[in-house]
Amino acid sequence: MNKGVVILAHGSRAIAWEANQLVVKIVEMYKVKTGNKNVKPAYMNSKSGGPSLEDAVTELVKEGLTEIIVAPWFLTDGLHIREDIPEIISALEEKYPQAKITLAKVLGADERIVDILIDRIEEAK
Amino acid sequence: MNKGVVILAHGSRAIAWEANQLVVKIVEMYKVKTGNKNVKPAYMNSKSGGPSLEDAVTELVKEGLTEIIVAPWFLTDGLHIREDIPEIISALEEKYPQAKITLAKVLGADERIVDILIDRIEEAK
Repeated sequence: MNKGVVILAHGSRAIAWEANQLVVKIVEMYKVKTGNKNVKPAYMNSKSGGPSLEDAVTELVKEGLTEIIVAPWFLTDGLHIREDIPEIISALEEKYPQAKITLAKVLGADERIVDILIDRIEEAK
Repeated sequence: MNKGVVILAHGSRAIAWEANQLVVKIVEMYKVKTGNKNVKPAYMNSKSGGPSLEDAVTELVKEGLTEIIVAPWFLTDGLHIREDIPEIISALEEKYPQAKITLAKVLGADERIVDILIDRIEEAK
């Protein structure tokens, strides 16, 4: 069985709901590329109007997943990644002792990010 | 002459200064890949401790650049991209009428972002 995956967005204030929808598109692209259907989006910002990390993990646990990877759709590891998210994951592991929940690394200084920036800058000229 | 480029990070609160340094690495990678030396990092969050968009554009204008692309190192277009940054750019164009300042698009739902997420999730297993 595939592992469960939560793709975790920062999330934006409600006025920019279209901005928040982008992670849903990323989740769909991930499902198509990997064939894993056990993938859910979640948002750190409660004002975003979307499901929280707790909501997404709870759904995966209810669907019977026992290994869950939380993948931050974040460029860099600020305070959410260093403090808030590990605390939420610890609480979820206490709540669901049958589940192993692992936090993946952020996107980081990856060559492919630089390649996308090169394209965006080229397109803007 | 190359155009000036500002790679604009969201920026994090001061405690996570290492997180803020990542955009400096992205700028270095961009310079190496493109050969353009007229590239500066900037931060939206004034608590990040780094140069602001105003600081970076002012430096490029003082160095004689008249065409400047502001490339947001942002995954999605929340309110900073839709409202705050265009306002700052308009004010800078009034201040420096010799400069044309263009805002590039965000990274967005790019296949390469999904490929990086696939790697991060694989590494976390």
